[in-house]
Amino acid sequence: MEQRVSLVTLGVSDLRRAKAFYEQLGWRGQEVEETVFFQAGGQALVLWDRSKLAADAGVVAGPPGEFSGVVLAHNVRSTEEVDELIGSAVAAGGAVTKPAAATFYGGYAGCFADPDGHLWEIAHNPGFPLADDGALLLPDFGDAAPPLG
Amino acid sequence: MEQRVSLVTLGVSDLRRAKAFYEQLGWRGQEVEETVFFQAGGQALVLWDRSKLAADAGVVAGPPGEFSGVVLAHNVRSTEEVDELIGSAVAAGGAVTKPAAATFYGGYAGCFADPDGHLWEIAHNPGFPLADDGALLLPDFGDAAPPLG
Repeated sequence: MEQRVSLVTLGVSDLRRAKAFYEQLGWRGQEVEETVFFQAGGQALVLWDRSKLAADAGVVAGPPGEFSGVVLAHNVRSTEEVDELIGSAVAAGGAVTKPAAATFYGGYAGCFADPDGHLWEIAHNPGFPLADDGALLLPDFGDAAPPLG
Repeated sequence: MEQRVSLVTLGVSDLRRAKAFYEQLGWRGQEVEETVFFQAGGQALVLWDRSKLAADAGVVAGPPGEFSGVVLAHNVRSTEEVDELIGSAVAAGGAVTKPAAATFYGGYAGCFADPDGHLWEIAHNPGFPLADDGALLLPDFGDAAPPLG
Protein backbone atom coordinates (compact mmCIF):
# COMPACT_ATOMS: atom_id res chain seq x y z
CA MET A 1 0.00 0.00 0.00
CA GLU A 2 1.52 3.29 -1.06
CA GLN A 3 1.54 5.95 1.65
CA ARG A 4 -1.05 8.35 0.38
CA VAL A 5 -4.66 9.37 0.81
CA SER A 6 -6.46 9.90 -2.50
CA LEU A 7 -9.65 11.47 -1.20
CA VAL A 8 -10.94 12.76 2.11
CA THR A 9 -14.72 12.69 2.04
CA LEU A 10 -16.65 14.68 4.63
CA GLY A 11 -20.23 13.67 5.29
CA VAL A 12 -22.51 16.70 5.37
CA SER A 13 -26.15 17.23 6.25
CA ASP A 14 -26.71 20.18 3.90
CA LEU A 15 -24.58 20.17 0.76
CA ARG A 16 -25.48 23.78 -0.17
CA ARG A 17 -24.40 25.05 3.21
CA ALA A 18 -21.21 23.00 3.26
CA LYS A 19 -20.24 24.03 -0.25
CA ALA A 20 -20.92 27.68 0.52
CA PHE A 21 -18.70 27.49 3.58
CA TYR A 22 -15.68 26.18 1.69
CA GLU A 23 -16.31 28.53 -1.23
CA GLN A 24 -16.36 31.48 1.15
CA LEU A 25 -12.93 30.35 2.31
CA GLY A 26 -11.82 30.57 -1.29
CA TRP A 27 -12.04 26.93 -2.33
CA ARG A 28 -13.18 26.23 -5.88
CA GLY A 29 -14.43 22.84 -6.99
CA GLN A 30 -16.81 20.95 -9.18
CA GLU A 31 -20.24 19.61 -8.32
CA VAL A 32 -21.49 16.47 -9.95
CA GLU A 33 -24.34 14.22 -8.84
CA GLU A 34 -24.83 16.08 -5.55
CA THR A 35 -21.19 15.68 -4.65
CA VAL A 36 -18.61 18.46 -4.49
CA PHE A 37 -15.02 17.68 -5.41
CA PHE A 38 -12.20 20.07 -4.54
CA GLN A 39 -8.68 19.42 -5.81
CA ALA A 40 -6.52 19.73 -2.70
CA GLY A 41 -2.88 19.22 -3.52
CA GLY A 42 -2.44 15.67 -4.74
CA GLN A 43 -5.77 14.55 -3.37
CA ALA A 44 -9.42 15.52 -3.44
CA LEU A 45 -11.50 16.87 -0.60
CA VAL A 46 -15.07 15.76 -1.17
CA LEU A 47 -18.39 16.84 0.32
CA TRP A 48 -21.21 14.30 0.19
CA ASP A 49 -24.42 13.61 2.00
CA ARG A 50 -23.59 11.99 5.33
CA SER A 51 -26.20 9.23 5.05
CA LYS A 52 -25.16 8.33 1.52
CA LEU A 53 -21.52 8.29 2.57
CA ALA A 54 -22.27 5.92 5.44
CA ALA A 55 -24.33 3.63 3.22
CA ASP A 56 -21.61 3.64 0.59
CA ALA A 57 -19.07 2.58 3.20
CA GLY A 58 -21.40 -0.12 4.51
CA VAL A 59 -21.94 1.34 7.96
CA VAL A 60 -24.89 2.71 9.90
CA ALA A 61 -24.96 6.50 9.81
CA GLY A 62 -26.40 7.00 13.28
CA PRO A 63 -26.39 10.42 14.89
CA PRO A 64 -23.12 12.35 14.83
CA GLY A 65 -21.07 11.79 17.97
CA GLU A 66 -19.55 14.60 19.99
CA PHE A 67 -16.20 14.01 18.32
CA SER A 68 -15.63 12.38 14.96
CA GLY A 69 -12.18 11.20 15.95
CA VAL A 70 -10.64 12.92 12.95
CA VAL A 71 -8.99 16.34 12.70
CA LEU A 72 -7.78 17.88 9.44
CA ALA A 73 -4.93 20.34 9.70
CA HIS A 74 -4.07 23.14 7.35
CA ASN A 75 -0.62 24.51 7.97
CA VAL A 76 0.32 28.03 6.97
CA ARG A 77 3.52 30.02 6.82
CA SER A 78 2.96 32.58 9.57
CA THR A 79 1.08 33.20 12.79
CA GLU A 80 -0.73 36.06 11.07
CA GLU A 81 -2.17 33.65 8.53
CA VAL A 82 -3.51 31.50 11.35
CA ASP A 83 -5.46 34.41 12.79
CA GLU A 84 -6.67 35.56 9.38
CA LEU A 85 -7.86 32.13 8.34
CA ILE A 86 -9.70 31.42 11.58
CA GLY A 87 -11.33 34.83 11.25
CA SER A 88 -12.41 33.94 7.73
CA ALA A 89 -13.80 30.61 8.92
CA VAL A 90 -15.89 32.32 11.58
CA ALA A 91 -17.16 34.83 9.02
CA ALA A 92 -18.13 31.92 6.79
CA GLY A 93 -20.14 30.21 9.53
CA GLY A 94 -17.52 28.10 11.28
CA ALA A 95 -17.23 27.87 15.06
CA VAL A 96 -13.98 28.27 16.92
CA THR A 97 -13.41 25.26 19.15
CA LYS A 98 -9.96 26.34 20.29
CA PRO A 99 -8.75 29.92 20.02
CA ALA A 100 -5.39 30.32 18.36
CA ALA A 101 -2.52 30.24 20.81
CA ALA A 102 1.11 29.26 21.09
CA THR A 103 1.64 25.50 21.04
CA PHE A 104 3.97 23.29 23.03
CA TYR A 105 6.03 22.58 19.92
CA GLY A 106 6.87 26.21 19.35
CA GLY A 107 4.16 26.94 16.84
CA TYR A 108 0.83 28.72 16.85
CA ALA A 109 -2.51 27.08 16.15
CA GLY A 110 -6.24 27.21 16.62
CA CYS A 111 -9.18 25.04 15.63
CA PHE A 112 -12.61 25.54 14.17
CA ALA A 113 -15.52 23.29 13.27
CA ASP A 114 -17.13 23.58 9.86
CA PRO A 115 -20.96 23.74 9.68
CA ASP A 116 -21.14 19.94 10.01
CA GLY A 117 -18.73 19.80 12.92
CA HIS A 118 -15.72 18.63 10.93
CA LEU A 119 -12.68 19.92 12.75
CA TRP A 120 -9.84 21.87 11.20
CA GLU A 121 -6.68 22.94 12.93
CA ILE A 122 -4.99 25.95 11.37
CA ALA A 123 -1.37 25.87 12.37
CA HIS A 124 1.93 27.57 11.88
CA ASN A 125 4.55 24.97 12.75
CA PRO A 126 8.08 26.14 12.00
CA GLY A 127 9.26 22.55 12.45
CA PHE A 128 7.15 21.23 9.55
CA PRO A 129 8.38 22.91 6.38
CA LEU A 130 5.94 23.65 3.57
CA ALA A 131 7.09 23.36 -0.03
CA ASP A 132 6.30 26.11 -2.52
CA ASP A 133 3.18 24.20 -3.57
CA GLY A 134 2.09 23.86 0.05
CA ALA A 135 3.07 20.21 0.45
CA LEU A 136 4.03 19.34 4.01
CA LEU A 137 7.31 17.51 4.37
CA LEU A 138 7.91 15.83 7.69
CA PRO A 139 11.36 16.47 9.12
CA ASP A 140 13.60 13.70 10.36
CA PHE A 141 12.73 13.62 14.03
CA GLY A 142 16.07 11.95 14.68
CA ASP A 143 16.88 11.15 18.27
CA ALA A 144 13.49 12.39 19.39
CA ALA A 145 11.95 9.47 17.55
CA PRO A 146 12.45 6.09 19.18
CA PRO A 147 12.65 3.12 16.81
CA LEU A 148 9.26 2.03 15.58
CA GLY A 149 8.12 -1.43 16.45
CA MET B 1 -6.96 29.56 2.07
CA GLU B 2 -4.97 27.33 -0.24
CA GLN B 3 -6.75 24.15 -1.26
CA ARG B 4 -4.82 21.54 0.63
CA VAL B 5 -4.88 19.41 3.76
CA SER B 6 -1.55 19.35 5.59
CA LEU B 7 -2.29 16.58 8.06
CA VAL B 8 -5.05 14.06 8.65
CA THR B 9 -4.98 13.00 12.28
CA LEU B 10 -6.83 9.88 13.32
CA GLY B 11 -7.73 9.54 16.97
CA VAL B 12 -6.88 6.07 18.27
CA SER B 13 -7.53 4.24 21.51
CA ASP B 14 -4.40 2.08 21.39
CA LEU B 15 -1.43 3.63 19.62
CA ARG B 16 0.55 0.34 19.54
CA ARG B 17 -2.30 -1.47 17.84
CA ALA B 18 -3.00 1.34 15.38
CA LYS B 19 0.65 1.71 14.46
CA ALA B 20 1.03 -2.03 13.98
CA PHE B 21 -1.97 -2.07 11.67
CA TYR B 22 -0.58 0.57 9.32
CA GLU B 23 2.91 -0.92 9.49
CA GLN B 24 1.52 -4.29 8.49
CA LEU B 25 0.05 -2.57 5.44
CA GLY B 26 3.55 -1.39 4.61
CA TRP B 27 3.46 2.15 5.97
CA ARG B 28 6.63 3.46 7.56
CA GLY B 29 6.70 6.49 9.81
CA GLN B 30 8.25 8.13 12.82
CA GLU B 31 7.03 8.06 16.38
CA VAL B 32 7.65 11.01 18.64
CA GLU B 33 5.94 11.88 21.90
CA GLU B 34 3.37 9.09 21.57
CA THR B 35 2.36 10.29 18.13
CA VAL B 36 3.02 8.48 14.87
CA PHE B 37 3.64 10.55 11.73
CA PHE B 38 3.50 8.96 8.28
CA GLN B 39 4.50 10.98 5.23
CA ALA B 40 1.61 10.45 2.80
CA GLY B 41 2.19 12.24 -0.45
CA GLY B 42 2.30 15.95 0.26
CA GLN B 43 0.68 15.58 3.66
CA ALA B 44 1.07 13.61 6.85
CA LEU B 45 -1.23 10.93 8.22
CA VAL B 46 -0.98 11.04 11.99
CA LEU B 47 -2.06 8.63 14.72
CA TRP B 48 -2.66 10.12 18.15
CA ASP B 49 -4.58 9.28 21.26
CA ARG B 50 -8.25 10.03 20.66
CA SER B 51 -8.80 11.85 23.97
CA LYS B 52 -5.72 13.99 23.52
CA LEU B 53 -6.74 14.83 19.98
CA ALA B 54 -10.20 15.91 21.14
CA ALA B 55 -8.75 18.01 23.94
CA ASP B 56 -6.26 19.58 21.57
CA ALA B 57 -9.08 20.57 19.24
CA GLY B 58 -11.13 21.95 22.12
CA VAL B 59 -13.97 19.46 21.94
CA VAL B 60 -15.39 16.75 24.20
CA ALA B 61 -14.17 13.32 23.18
CA GLY B 62 -17.32 11.44 24.12
CA PRO B 63 -17.81 7.86 23.00
CA PRO B 64 -17.20 7.10 19.32
CA GLY B 65 -20.38 7.31 17.25
CA GLU B 66 -21.48 4.62 14.84
CA PHE B 67 -20.09 6.66 11.96
CA SER B 68 -17.39 9.29 12.16
CA GLY B 69 -18.71 11.12 9.13
CA VAL B 70 -15.34 10.88 7.42
CA VAL B 71 -14.09 8.33 4.88
CA LEU B 72 -10.53 8.24 3.55
CA ALA B 73 -10.06 6.79 0.10
CA HIS B 74 -6.98 5.17 -1.32
CA ASN B 75 -7.18 4.80 -5.08
CA VAL B 76 -5.18 2.17 -6.91
CA ARG B 77 -4.47 1.36 -10.52
CA SER B 78 -6.32 -1.93 -10.95
CA THR B 79 -9.19 -3.99 -9.60
CA GLU B 80 -6.67 -6.64 -8.56
CA GLU B 81 -4.96 -4.14 -6.29
CA VAL B 82 -8.29 -3.39 -4.61
CA ASP B 83 -8.76 -7.05 -3.70
CA GLU B 84 -5.16 -7.47 -2.61
CA LEU B 85 -5.20 -4.42 -0.41
CA ILE B 86 -8.48 -5.25 1.28
CA GLY B 87 -7.13 -8.74 1.88
CA SER B 88 -4.03 -7.25 3.47
CA ALA B 89 -6.16 -4.98 5.65
CA VAL B 90 -8.17 -7.93 6.94
CA ALA B 91 -4.97 -9.87 7.64
CA ALA B 92 -3.71 -6.86 9.58
CA GLY B 93 -6.81 -6.71 11.76
CA GLY B 94 -9.14 -4.50 9.75
CA ALA B 95 -12.81 -5.30 9.22
CA VAL B 96 -14.49 -5.22 5.85
CA THR B 97 -17.53 -2.97 5.98
CA LYS B 98 -18.34 -3.24 2.28
CA PRO B 99 -17.00 -6.06 0.12
CA ALA B 100 -15.32 -4.93 -3.06
CA ALA B 101 -17.72 -4.71 -6.00
CA ALA B 102 -18.30 -2.80 -9.19
CA THR B 103 -19.39 0.79 -8.60
CA PHE B 104 -21.97 2.93 -10.35
CA TYR B 105 -19.23 5.10 -11.86
CA GLY B 106 -17.59 2.20 -13.66
CA GLY B 107 -14.96 1.46 -11.07
CA TYR B 108 -14.41 -1.16 -8.40
CA ALA B 109 -14.20 -0.47 -4.69
CA GLY B 110 -14.59 -1.85 -1.21
CA CYS B 111 -14.28 -0.48 2.31
CA PHE B 112 -12.70 -1.52 5.55
CA ALA B 113 -12.49 -0.11 9.05
CA ASP B 114 -9.14 0.13 10.79
CA PRO B 115 -8.90 -1.11 14.40
CA ASP B 116 -10.35 2.20 15.65
CA GLY B 117 -13.19 2.20 13.15
CA HIS B 118 -11.66 4.74 10.78
CA LEU B 119 -13.03 3.96 7.36
CA TRP B 120 -10.99 3.49 4.22
CA GLU B 121 -12.35 2.97 0.75
CA ILE B 122 -9.97 1.19 -1.61
CA ALA B 123 -10.98 2.06 -5.13
CA HIS B 124 -10.02 1.65 -8.72
CA ASN B 125 -11.65 4.55 -10.54
CA PRO B 126 -10.62 4.76 -14.18
CA GLY B 127 -12.14 8.25 -14.31
CA PHE B 128 -9.75 9.65 -11.69
CA PRO B 129 -6.23 9.41 -13.06
CA LEU B 130 -3.32 8.82 -10.72
CA ALA B 131 0.02 10.47 -11.43
CA ASP B 132 3.23 8.46 -11.27
CA ASP B 133 3.68 9.55 -7.65
CA GLY B 134 0.14 8.48 -6.82
CA ALA B 135 -1.34 11.98 -6.72
CA LEU B 136 -5.00 12.03 -7.69
CA LEU B 137 -5.93 14.59 -10.32
CA LEU B 138 -9.60 15.33 -10.69
CA PRO B 139 -10.80 15.38 -14.29
CA ASP B 140 -12.83 18.22 -15.72
CA PHE B 141 -16.36 16.99 -15.18
CA GLY B 142 -17.51 19.31 -17.95
CA ASP B 143 -21.20 19.31 -18.73
CA ALA B 144 -21.88 16.81 -15.98
CA ALA B 145 -20.97 19.51 -13.50
CA PRO B 146 -23.53 22.30 -13.11
CA PRO B 147 -22.17 25.73 -12.23
CA LEU B 148 -21.27 26.03 -8.58
CA GLY B 149 -23.16 28.56 -6.54
